Amino acid sequence: MTKAAHILRVACPDQPGLVARVTQCLFENGGNIEDAAQFNDNLSGHFFMRVAFTGDGAAFSKSFAPLAKSLSIDWQLIPANAPVKTLVLVSREDHCLHDILYHAKAGHLPLDIRAVGANHDTMKEQAARADIPFHLVPAKDETALRKLVESTGAELVVLARYMQILSGDFCKLYPGRIINIHHSFLPGFKGAKPYHQAYARGVKIIGATAHFVTADLDEGPIIEQDTVRVNHSMGPEGLKRIGRDIETRVLRRALEYYAERRIFLHGNHTVIL
Amino acid sequence: MTKAAHILRVACPDQPGLVARVTQCLFENGGNIEDAAQFNDNLSGHFFMRVAFTGDGAAFSKSFAPLAKSLSIDWQLIPANAPVKTLVLVSREDHCLHDILYHAKAGHLPLDIRAVGANHDTMKEQAARADIPFHLVPAKDETALRKLVESTGAELVVLARYMQILSGDFCKLYPGRIINIHHSFLPGFKGAKPYHQAYARGVKIIGATAHFVTADLDEGPIIEQDTVRVNHSMGPEGLKRIGRDIETRVLRRALEYYAERRIFLHGNHTVIL
Amino acid sequence: MTKAAHILRVACPDQPGLVARVTQCLFENGGNIEDAAQFNDNLSGHFFMRVAFTGDGAAFSKSFAPLAKSLSIDWQLIPANAPVKTLVLVSREDHCLHDILYHAKAGHLPLDIRAVGANHDTMKEQAARADIPFHLVPAKDETALRKLVESTGAELVVLARYMQILSGDFCKLYPGRIINIHHSFLPGFKGAKPYHQAYARGVKIIGATAHFVTADLDEGPIIEQDTVRVNHSMGPEGLKRIGRDIETRVLRRALEYYAERRIFLHGNHTVIL
Amino acid sequence: MTKAAHILRVACPDQPGLVARVTQCLFENGGNIEDAAQFNDNLSGHFFMRVAFTGDGAAFSKSFAPLAKSLSIDWQLIPANAPVKTLVLVSREDHCLHDILYHAKAGHLPLDIRAVGANHDTMKEQAARADIPFHLVPAKDETALRKLVESTGAELVVLARYMQILSGDFCKLYPGRIINIHHSFLPGFKGAKPYHQAYARGVKIIGATAHFVTADLDEGPIIEQDTVRVNHSMGPEGLKRIGRDIETRVLRRALEYYAERRIFLHGNHTVIL
Repeated sequence: MTKAAHILRVACPDQPGLVARVTQCLFENGGNIEDAAQFNDNLSGHFFMRVAFTGDGAAFSKSFAPLAKSLSIDWQLIPANAPVKTLVLVSREDHCLHDILYHAKAGHLPLDIRAVGANHDTMKEQAARADIPFHLVPAKDETALRKLVESTGAELVVLARYMQILSGDFCKLYPGRIINIHHSFLPGFKGAKPYHQAYARGVKIIGATAHFVTADLDEGPIIEQDTVRVNHSMGPEGLKRIGRDIETRVLRRALEYYAERRIFLHGNHTVIL
Repeated sequence: MTKAAHILRVACPDQPGLVARVTQCLFENGGNIEDAAQFNDNLSGHFFMRVAFTGDGAAFSKSFAPLAKSLSIDWQLIPANAPVKTLVLVSREDHCLHDILYHAKAGHLPLDIRAVGANHDTMKEQAARADIPFHLVPAKDETALRKLVESTGAELVVLARYMQILSGDFCKLYPGRIINIHHSFLPGFKGAKPYHQAYARGVKIIGATAHFVTADLDEGPIIEQDTVRVNHSMGPEGLKRIGRDIETRVLRRALEYYAERRIFLHGNHTVIL
Repeated sequence: MTKAAHILRVACPDQPGLVARVTQCLFENGGNIEDAAQFNDNLSGHFFMRVAFTGDGAAFSKSFAPLAKSLSIDWQLIPANAPVKTLVLVSREDHCLHDILYHAKAGHLPLDIRAVGANHDTMKEQAARADIPFHLVPAKDETALRKLVESTGAELVVLARYMQILSGDFCKLYPGRIINIHHSFLPGFKGAKPYHQAYARGVKIIGATAHFVTADLDEGPIIEQDTVRVNHSMGPEGLKRIGRDIETRVLRRALEYYAERRIFLHGNHTVIL
Repeated sequence: MTKAAHILRVACPDQPGLVARVTQCLFENGGNIEDAAQFNDNLSGHFFMRVAFTGDGAAFSKSFAPLAKSLSIDWQLIPANAPVKTLVLVSREDHCLHDILYHAKAGHLPLDIRAVGANHDTMKEQAARADIPFHLVPAKDETALRKLVESTGAELVVLARYMQILSGDFCKLYPGRIINIHHSFLPGFKGAKPYHQAYARGVKIIGATAHFVTADLDEGPIIEQDTVRVNHSMGPEGLKRIGRDIETRVLRRALEYYAERRIFLHGNHTVIL
């Protein structure tokens, strides 16, 4: 949680004087930088910057717009601490949903959960207890899914162990707006039953991966990953049990980054500032 | 480093009373258990046990042999703390070799390094400084390699960043006796240039894998793995630099397990006791 | 979760043939070992063993009792998978309670939560939602606390961020039965406000410690610990936020160890088998 | 290793427009920012900034000097990639020295090791093999130590397991220039024999701490820390063995931060940019 009133996000081809120009414009408009980070990607020649600041956002925007245009800067100014309108999709496993609802309610995770959608009614009661509308959406009914995104006004769609594959067409509607948690350390163990795959391969570490969903299944840009040590005595069920915990944490961290407007998507990469 | 005089290794199909029979035989022959571990693999129905003990190894062996035969037990009795005769193969990168030589000499790693073999003479001087014979073996000359294994009496062959692919025939000569360090978290990023692959994929964590070498390239049974967190600001060279450290540690741990006779190979798995 | 029907726990001064005698007695009574671990503490000369087995527990007990007596073995035979009757004490922070209730209900944590006790009514509703009786116990009223332990039949008392100091007399009533989560990496930062202490000291890593409660505040035997990396940009509030997650996990793991009967208390140590 | 030619370090009381002014001055003098990081310490009201840039350092300095003076900025402009002249002090344990010499020689660690000083001649040969002058300095002879710092022209003094306590007077001569590796996770286990202390306390994790040396023993500003999981089966000697590895890595990382000019010392804190 930041004290800042605004988050400025800047992305553009690298060129001399970018930091100076952005911060000078902020300074001239009375903006007070609380936190700033930037990254020059030498390989792609792209520049990314995130600034959290207090001050008059409208005045800054007015000054910055023509400058940004002249420098081909892609930018957004977003109110800090405005909860992100979010739709959570689930199937039968509830550990990620449970964690998101708890942390959103406790105020640790700045998400405004507008609805829970599911292809089973297993979690209907859990949503009810948290006073979140629950919608049963039949598998493959992407028209219904699309209506749900629209009716809830969700900016972000979270696949919190949603075991349905979304079509490429659906994914393209919401680029950089659908986050999935995959229960393996991608790119190892793509596809179904990754814990069984991991056990069969005898790995000594398992992991989880939060990524943006694209038309290429399990190939979307990676946002966050983490791993945990396992051993031969844990069968596939043991790996699943241990894995639940790491899935939960990795997804939550990815959602924090999103809500704090830290993620920059560039090709098949992410830059987290 | 254990106080025990002997390491007993037992592997067989699971059956009632195995632990009782093994430990009873040890007890009756005056063996004193310093450390013991066993594992029942419920999925494969196989049993594994490792016992470090002090006492009269010959007396135990004499008693245990007929019992083991009647129960179809595959077993070895090995002197504890006897350094493992080892051949280290390298190419141009020296970090793993350097670490092995240091820890073997310091007495932390019970290996008796008989020789360093290489397809380049880059590390000739490094071997000389450690008073270890150095042999240049041309790439693909597996006859020379085989002679080197034989002439050094090596039980264990360590590929310490040896960048040549060994033939399936060569691998089959030394099952469970060749350990390789792969500079990725297998099964992700098999093949060449894994750090470049990892960078291109935008992973947030990289790893290393020590495994037994089999005829299936990068598919041998995994002995040890570890991971380390990275970020977007590290290019492929940065990942390589960070990766060196983890390769070094993962390989060293795998060699410790081997030298302490902890690794049981079963199909494409390992059990580490 | 184990398939075993019984957990056998053994502790005694080390002497030859212990493993043989225990496993022989199991074998003779038709016990089938599912999992076994033992530890010889060379420094204290004490021996610890935990065996999970299927078979006739009563027959084993009858045979083992005289043997155990003759060898001065301290032992228990406990039904595996019998949930531990537990009283959870809390104050105002709910993250640990929330996690325990979720995992107990989901069947991941074999605890039978009989009641939640608190010195504030902050969490009354949370307990109600989980259908767990809630009791308000005024601070320092240890008579009421004692009655609560008795009336609930609790074997285990969990201090899930309970911010009251228990008297030495109270602690002595329940040796090895009260588990606390301390929000620092003990023995660093004992006492109050450990995150503020950690920030002031500029540490690069924070941690949490689950320990048995004894009359010596923050000095009880450590059951589990873990750490997480932090940096200068996180103020005391940031450390608290990050710390909540690790407190939750460390406490849960300690409760798993307890419920699986893995913890052996010996002097100021624990052995986890 | 950066491509940048210069490292600019800035520290001052926080005030509006600092980033704008510094980066504007760089821009006007043709400086090209390769990497920049800044931190506003809200609690102390202090601002820190590190910029790696290519371009004309002399021109920038000439412009920046009057600006810095008017804003009370404490600053340095340092050639990037100029190895730091370093004196390494050791006693009998060689693992940290060994690692530093290897990585400095391999070009991974930009240190120019001018000499090794020791209160034992145990490591004379090791220094010789690396072609580094070795000096025997009797314990407590701080006059000799001071002469050694001066004659080697060392900017940095590294206590690589140097088991002598330096006087407060000596420490004050070199503020922010002496780095020690302490073999515990400070502030836990200050003083002698930390692994024995850790074992006696039954901790489940051990650690190491690199810190600047001040007159307050084991209380200097922390630069880097790390931890590793241990268990009851590792006696004090086992903890020492495992600890060596983590000491080595933590010290190396602290030296990397120093050599890359990332460490800002502020009161009893460090900020690592």
